[in-house]
Amino acid sequence: MARIVMKFGGTSMAGIERIRSVAARVKREAAAGNQVAVVVSAMAGETDRLVGFCREASPLYDPREYDVVVAAGEQITSGLLAIALQAIGVPARSWLGWQLPINTDDAFAKARIGTIDTQALDASLSAGEVAVIPGFQGVSAEGRITTLGRGGSDTSAVAVAAAMKADRCDIYTDVDGVYTTDPRIVPRARKLAKVTYEEMLELASVGAKVLQTRSVGLAMKEKVRVQVLSSFTGEDAPMADTLPGTMIVGEEEAASQENGDVERQLITGIAHDKNEAKITLTSVPDTPGSVASIFEPLAAANINVDMIIQNIAHRSSASSSATDVTFTVPAADLPRSIEALNQAREAIGFGELIHDMRVAKISVVGVGMRSHAGVASTMFTTLGARGINIQAISTSEIKVSVLIHEDETELAVRVLHTAYGLDAEEAA
Amino acid sequence: MARIVMKFGGTSMAGIERIRSVAARVKREAAAGNQVAVVVSAMAGETDRLVGFCREASPLYDPREYDVVVAAGEQITSGLLAIALQAIGVPARSWLGWQLPINTDDAFAKARIGTIDTQALDASLSAGEVAVIPGFQGVSAEGRITTLGRGGSDTSAVAVAAAMKADRCDIYTDVDGVYTTDPRIVPRARKLAKVTYEEMLELASVGAKVLQTRSVGLAMKEKVRVQVLSSFTGEDAPMADTLPGTMIVGEEEAASQENGDVERQLITGIAHDKNEAKITLTSVPDTPGSVASIFEPLAAANINVDMIIQNIAHRSSASSSATDVTFTVPAADLPRSIEALNQAREAIGFGELIHDMRVAKISVVGVGMRSHAGVASTMFTTLGARGINIQAISTSEIKVSVLIHEDETELAVRVLHTAYGLDAEEAA
Repeated sequence: MARIVMKFGGTSMAGIERIRSVAARVKREAAAGNQVAVVVSAMAGETDRLVGFCREASPLYDPREYDVVVAAGEQITSGLLAIALQAIGVPARSWLGWQLPINTDDAFAKARIGTIDTQALDASLSAGEVAVIPGFQGVSAEGRITTLGRGGSDTSAVAVAAAMKADRCDIYTDVDGVYTTDPRIVPRARKLAKVTYEEMLELASVGAKVLQTRSVGLAMKEKVRVQVLSSFTGEDAPMADTLPGTMIVGEEEAASQENGDVERQLITGIAHDKNEAKITLTSVPDTPGSVASIFEPLAAANINVDMIIQNIAHRSSASSSATDVTFTVPAADLPRSIEALNQAREAIGFGELIHDMRVAKISVVGVGMRSHAGVASTMFTTLGARGINIQAISTSEIKVSVLIHEDETELAVRVLHTAYGLDAEEAA
Repeated sequence: MARIVMKFGGTSMAGIERIRSVAARVKREAAAGNQVAVVVSAMAGETDRLVGFCREASPLYDPREYDVVVAAGEQITSGLLAIALQAIGVPARSWLGWQLPINTDDAFAKARIGTIDTQALDASLSAGEVAVIPGFQGVSAEGRITTLGRGGSDTSAVAVAAAMKADRCDIYTDVDGVYTTDPRIVPRARKLAKVTYEEMLELASVGAKVLQTRSVGLAMKEKVRVQVLSSFTGEDAPMADTLPGTMIVGEEEAASQENGDVERQLITGIAHDKNEAKITLTSVPDTPGSVASIFEPLAAANINVDMIIQNIAHRSSASSSATDVTFTVPAADLPRSIEALNQAREAIGFGELIHDMRVAKISVVGVGMRSHAGVASTMFTTLGARGINIQAISTSEIKVSVLIHEDETELAVRVLHTAYGLDAEEAA
């Protein structure tokens, strides 16, 4: 017997036919003797509908009331899945966020989960009931409904798995696992049997939209074994514990030769992200503190700055020198960034503000690179050989990222995928 | 300062534009210095959509999970109305059934309200907040969501009004009050300034579909002054305390000459109801207990029998006498009634079972008739003069009802409306 959390997204819950198919899959796990909790999203499109209502009612809506409205989407699907499970003979009941309870802070609309009481849940699971839990929601200390922010259902699933000490948290999505890169760009992308939490964080945050970043961070902290697998394989598919999804695990387990990976690659995958924007400030005075004064107003506005390059200072007049500073921000934050910088123009003393949305960030990710200095040079050489100009570079322990022109995204991903030996024998 | 409950139905909540118009109306009551709680229905059509999902998931759905699903409709509108109120500067917050809490029994899908805790509500109202409360829902002793059954929002509003000792419970509907009869049948029907709870119960249960019967019964028990008024008059309409709606009150207040009624009529209104079915059992043995044996199986099946006529016994053979028994049941219960009677055929010993859906019940209602014996004879004479055949009669302290052929419904209502002097000078 194992304890398993199964999480299904909005596409899997879109309509009663699909909910019935989810119920059949849950039944198989329960019938195999497992204790099962299911975390569900709202029906596809429902959260957008409810958010739209709130915005229409008031663009400056009270997040406490917004949470009351949008939490209804998952409430509906959790009740419906419980009904569908009972209809095929599986004892089941729904547990709303305030019923378990799933305690959160009171940052409404973007709450963070604190503790989850498992006493009632344990009793229910031990009695052979499947627990159906709406994702995305919890309850504040003063008893008001909270939601976790968009995509929060993945985080709910991992948090429930941690609280109930689940052996596995299976995330059913519309992809069948994590690939070495986007298979729409590289048909020979390979599905990974295992990735580490750290790699998944880099792959997720730079564009592999499989799991919410926050849920991966939580899984890493709580050591929850997360499996990504497809919700679209038929009911005659093998059981989830033998399904060829991708396991997201700690480094030790990932490095082991068991269960899949015959050979651990140096590089795990290539990610791309077109949601960055580049800003260049010209003629910034090359004096101590002047570059810092650029990033203070951005930090104050909660804007994440990613890559930063400062050119070599050049003489702008006989008496003083100046420099150009380039950096990237999330594309969605570009208007606010421009506003914040223009307001601080006098303090910074820059010449012109030039911005460019037509950029892409390409990242090479792999836990193995920590001990391999050659990864970066392979990247630069490969891109240079195809005439792709590198506009900025940033690195972390397990990642090297470059900023290039948006039009060259697909080409860059393809040549790097080949250069690092990631291509499969046959197209995926 | 008064304490007021305002209740808005699904048509008033159908879309953000209408919710905004509700908010404007609530603002006027609050701005006049009143403490206001608002009870809301789900958006028109939403409850049907959610009920449809449950039925599709399983015709034999678990009512506990059904309640989780359908309660979401009112949860959504209560959050949206709170947002719309805040947007026009009115402090407001939603209070879900489990938050107040509104305690109910655990008859899921048809729960009855027990007590309502008003401590938090009182504090919120005293602080100048408008309380927005989803109708139709509560919470069971073990902390599960319950719903009150269709139309339960009227009952929620009256229960909240009773708990918070409200001066008035204003029910905004798509009619602008209670009329002496259906204005679609009699254009000269008059809107009543006041009716008693008892009259309203008779008018509601026999066809004036303004308020849920159960809510009127509760208002009578708890002595809540209920006002029915239109949700469609413009925002420049007079305040609700001077609006020409219909007040539903106790007999003493109804009899007083203040605030409206210049002269209290003997008869308050004429109601009609086409949802009855007539059953006749022929040749029932005229022995003690044999008639009772007809109604036992119907009572066991929870079928309400309304009018009963037993013809004079006639000799069916030399040694025994037999009689025909006619009675009415709700049309929706006709198939079950026939089944129950046929199963008990041997015990009852009837000859034939004849049924007729094409009947209508016409009722003359008025508190005043208790002391006026002539009401019934006026009714029979008036109908007889137009050749309308009376198939059955039943009476209560404040009502005389007759069963006639369905085709004569409108004619009967019109001639009775005139006969009792109810016609207005001009068409409504």
